Amino acid sequence: MKTLQVFPTWQSVVPGELHNKIAVVIDVLRATNTIITSLKNGAREIIPVSEIETAWELKNNNPSYLLGGERNSQKISGFDLGNSPLEYTRQIVNEKTIILATSNGSKALKTAEPAKDIFIASLANSKAVAHLLATTGLDITIICAGTLGSPSLEDTLAAGSIISEMKTFEQYQLNDYAYIALGSFTSYKWDIFNVILQSRNGRRLEELGMVSDIKPCSLLNNTDLVPLYKHSKITAN
Amino acid sequence: MKTLQVFPTWQSVVPGELHNKIAVVIDVLRATNTIITSLKNGAREIIPVSEIETAWELKNNNPSYLLGGERNSQKISGFDLGNSPLEYTRQIVNEKTIILATSNGSKALKTAEPAKDIFIASLANSKAVAHLLATTGLDITIICAGTLGSPSLEDTLAAGSIISEMKTFEQYQLNDYAYIALGSFTSYKWDIFNVILQSRNGRRLEELGMVSDIKPCSLLNNTDLVPLYKHSKITAN
Repeated sequence: MKTLQVFPTWQSVVPGELHNKIAVVIDVLRATNTIITSLKNGAREIIPVSEIETAWELKNNNPSYLLGGERNSQKISGFDLGNSPLEYTRQIVNEKTIILATSNGSKALKTAEPAKDIFIASLANSKAVAHLLATTGLDITIICAGTLGSPSLEDTLAAGSIISEMKTFEQYQLNDYAYIALGSFTSYKWDIFNVILQSRNGRRLEELGMVSDIKPCSLLNNTDLVPLYKHSKITAN
Repeated sequence: MKTLQVFPTWQSVVPGELHNKIAVVIDVLRATNTIITSLKNGAREIIPVSEIETAWELKNNNPSYLLGGERNSQKISGFDLGNSPLEYTRQIVNEKTIILATSNGSKALKTAEPAKDIFIASLANSKAVAHLLATTGLDITIICAGTLGSPSLEDTLAAGSIISEMKTFEQYQLNDYAYIALGSFTSYKWDIFNVILQSRNGRRLEELGMVSDIKPCSLLNNTDLVPLYKHSKITAN
């Protein structure tokens, strides 16, 4: 029986156990939605980095690249863009390479690197991700980024959403957190925006006057695009 | 606004943050059910210990005490009782002091020690615990024992059950895991036995031929008894 495991934070993953598995990385507020939106709007590729210094080095060597990202939910000084999916319009990102500096999302992707394939998910593409996973025939590990080492509600809901869309999930051995995520999503799926508004990151964005970012990040299944992370770059699969 | 926080494992709790809060410790399979059953059946008190050596020292100084507990879900050699609530009948435990050696449950209780009051909960007494919590007027921290540092389904369901019974929970600021637990419980509450049977600990007990232990641990609200942990001993509140 194949396994389908969900981890509540990237810190709880043992990277050595990802060999020959498919990994899915989720950071709903807001990195994975920014990535999906950028690729939908024609960006060529996205290079995720953890450190601001690394982002500047890349930019200095490649002046045409766009610099995007955040520290403490806010745009980094001197960068072209923050971490709001609303900023990544076609006019701005079409045919561009984007350097995206997000500490948490980038670390979650790094953790996933030993996996055979790494996909990026959010609520927006959970059905498409589920369909893709069902075709792989491999063990699946869904990595929620979480927040400062704690589970986050919005990432857990997205993990549950993917499982709920895998019509064949009963053919997998789920771990406990997979059941927890599935049950939680099933309860809240009709009111995701308001539930995310109550979450730690939701309240933080509201305090910062960025509540408009939550709306696009809480929409379910509005795209078939599944980003793929390979050789330290993200492209449309 | 008061806070109501749930932690998925005892390892994720910062004990220093428990001062002047009420803590609730949950270890559904099986320590907290064994404790509740013992007290219901007339046990005078329960002394939880992490180490087998500590249990033997106490027993040697107090020969009338009963020795109960487990290692890897199984009875410890030389002990009177294992960790199945079914063993703790009135005939055996009435008016007795029980030394209970369970590594995980005992460590969860130790973690809670800086709290003002520490209650012990399971699905069996979640309504009674909820009523008690609502009267305290203090911040609440619910500590799921978890399994080897990972969230466990049955503990998370019990945490969700307590919140669902707190009619005033909207007066509290919930953390993300509290919402996750509440959502998960709401989805699974009509089929708790079968859901717990799918969990890591449920499958483990089934493999060991102890599936009969899961039934009493998955029953909701069949007692008003709320054990209290104080001065390293557990008594009926």
